[in-house]
Amino acid sequence: MTSISIIGSGKMGAAIAEVASRAGADIQILKRSATSTSAARPGFEYGVIGDELTGDLVVFAVPSGAYPSILEHYRDRLGGRVVIDISNPIDFSTYDALTSPPDSSTAAELARALPEGASVVKAFNVNLGDTLTSGTNGTTRTTVLFAGDYADAKTAVASLIEAAGMRAVDVGPLTRARELEAMGFLQIIMAALGKTRYESGFTLLE
Amino acid sequence: MTSISIIGSGKMGAAIAEVASRAGADIQILKRSATSTSAARPGFEYGVIGDELTGDLVVFAVPSGAYPSILEHYRDRLGGRVVIDISNPIDFSTYDALTSPPDSSTAAELARALPEGASVVKAFNVNLGDTLTSGTNGTTRTTVLFAGDYADAKTAVASLIEAAGMRAVDVGPLTRARELEAMGFLQIIMAALGKTRYESGFTLLE
Repeated sequence: MTSISIIGSGKMGAAIAEVASRAGADIQILKRSATSTSAARPGFEYGVIGDELTGDLVVFAVPSGAYPSILEHYRDRLGGRVVIDISNPIDFSTYDALTSPPDSSTAAELARALPEGASVVKAFNVNLGDTLTSGTNGTTRTTVLFAGDYADAKTAVASLIEAAGMRAVDVGPLTRARELEAMGFLQIIMAALGKTRYESGFTLLE
Repeated sequence: MTSISIIGSGKMGAAIAEVASRAGADIQILKRSATSTSAARPGFEYGVIGDELTGDLVVFAVPSGAYPSILEHYRDRLGGRVVIDISNPIDFSTYDALTSPPDSSTAAELARALPEGASVVKAFNVNLGDTLTSGTNGTTRTTVLFAGDYADAKTAVASLIEAAGMRAVDVGPLTRARELEAMGFLQIIMAALGKTRYESGFTLLE
């Protein structure tokens, strides 16, 4: 199976680590500091941000506002890798708007900031973390929507999702990240308002 | 129950007429021309665009490109009414973008074009027509997402949806129509690509 580096150790990073673990991937988790010790777990390797990346897939599992600091460390080391943007760039002071450019997306902006040969895939942002950890939304297996411009990168992401027992749905080119971010925003509002549970959310029925 | 005028006689207009019929509403359907005869049906009244509106709720069930011509007829007669915008303003020449302003929505633009006292509610645009006609997405009862700025107008729309046996979910102020339009766009692409059926689509799980 594949290898994955997850930058960030919040709830979504942990959820994607569980996905990767179910898929049998080699997992590297890079945290902001090494102060918190992590129990040894087969297939898991821990490090701090700045360490060499060992994964073919690299997940930015930090708020999009922290992307510039991640790029300071890693921009020039991301050529040839698949970069997975899972962000929901919401203005959390108002919960009333996205912080991404209205005619673009955080994913497209990230792609522009990366070197030639890095392939950005938008994925997992329309999944509440619990639905990734469990692989189900309570009704059926979890569906993961993703978008990107590079077929090989999308195949790698879809393979990870499917190997983890979930349904992978390609929604199109990276321009569709604008719509995925709009939908992720709506989902987070709906969960915050109690109109869906954090264990369920939106799904695309078959 | 309430009364509803549906402007347009396409697939979505017919689906919303079925919803209104299940809800026990008095239904007026306004077509572009009277050439096609419609069989008499209890609770249904037919007319042509330009006729007086009899509904408290008014549905624009024409492509958003035709809104200007509808407004020529009705703009000054919409004060005090609830105007329901169901549009998915997709550029159908490319299927690659919305035609609404990126930082706004067709619903918000419509609200700006209407006189004082008209209340726009965005609704039904994230429902494929068949899920409205049947009241189910094949898995559970159909959920209808809606957004708007006026509580009375939203209550009227929610009552119609619920009286028709469906679940009504208020997603917030009319600014959320931007996100609803993004989601409706994504759903239409997914249906066109066969990634969901026209009888199902997206749903918000409970």
